[in-house]
Amino acid sequence: MSNQLAPWRTTLSHALHRNRSLAYARYFQLATINIKGEPTNRTVVFRGFLEEKNQLQIITDSRSEKINHINHNSASEICWYFPKTREQFRISGNLTIFDENSVDQSIRLRVWQKLSDLARQQFTWPETGQPITKNQENFSLPTPSENEPISPFVLLLFIPKKVDHLELRSQPHKRTIYYLDDSQTWIIKAVNP
Amino acid sequence: MSNQLAPWRTTLSHALHRNRSLAYARYFQLATINIKGEPTNRTVVFRGFLEEKNQLQIITDSRSEKINHINHNSASEICWYFPKTREQFRISGNLTIFDENSVDQSIRLRVWQKLSDLARQQFTWPETGQPITKNQENFSLPTPSENEPISPFVLLLFIPKKVDHLELRSQPHKRTIYYLDDSQTWIIKAVNP
Repeated sequence: MSNQLAPWRTTLSHALHRNRSLAYARYFQLATINIKGEPTNRTVVFRGFLEEKNQLQIITDSRSEKINHINHNSASEICWYFPKTREQFRISGNLTIFDENSVDQSIRLRVWQKLSDLARQQFTWPETGQPITKNQENFSLPTPSENEPISPFVLLLFIPKKVDHLELRSQPHKRTIYYLDDSQTWIIKAVNP
Repeated sequence: MSNQLAPWRTTLSHALHRNRSLAYARYFQLATINIKGEPTNRTVVFRGFLEEKNQLQIITDSRSEKINHINHNSASEICWYFPKTREQFRISGNLTIFDENSVDQSIRLRVWQKLSDLARQQFTWPETGQPITKNQENFSLPTPSENEPISPFVLLLFIPKKVDHLELRSQPHKRTIYYLDDSQTWIIKAVNP
């Protein structure tokens, strides 16, 4: 993976800044492929870049379906639409899983510590996707300590290899492709929208 | 395909109604799989249901990459997040292409006629994704007649087979799965969020 700060990073940071009044501008859609080879797609929350690098941090539950998908096929595409500035980033790349068994626990711990109590508490909930748990008390367990991530907490690191930036404000629209060449250098190309 | 009006249709219509003040609440993210078997993901505009049935209408350009993807693998998943009511619909199913070679031109024509002049004009633009066309006049061709869809105009019909509805307003969240059983009847199941 390239550790050079990618040229699209500034553009994406500007979009985040200009859309900061909308909490949901920090949500994006993450597509993966299930075991049957079909596409799956869900909204996730952007949890910042890894140490000001190009990799995007996402959190999930080890019992969620996407963990199986990613173990089987790590390819993924993010679709991130910013309503206020009417621009879209499509980011394709691969996902790496950091769970309780990972050798390096430092990133996982750091992201866990930044979570709200409410977000940490959700990792104590009964298994997602299973028939509804009748006893609602199982959704009211104590919030886990911020010092130690609990077992279901998983950090996903998204490693981008291509970014497709579309700006809808101008007529005609503007579209820019960024991709890593063989020497792991980011190339910028203006294309038709 | 089942022509029974699906039970999730009312729920989705309510979400559309309650979010109607946000133009972008009619946008959703559509995931498909490219020829290399990788997931791809982009924002598209909801163009209504087919004749008040369960199928969703989307439009695209015959020269866009997703046409190749769909010809190769019609499986798709929609991720539709409604910001105002904080709810998400994940709709999985298959896409059918209606282009200028389709035997039945009636749906394609009807959707074309409903488009704005601006939307129709965009189908005259130079090929998307190609190196930028220097001559900007190529983006200013006359708007095509509403009576006859031009060649690049394609209607995609999304045929749902499963819907995963997540409501984030309540604590704990609420999650409901709708799926077609072997007799093509929609089944409703409450699951853990």
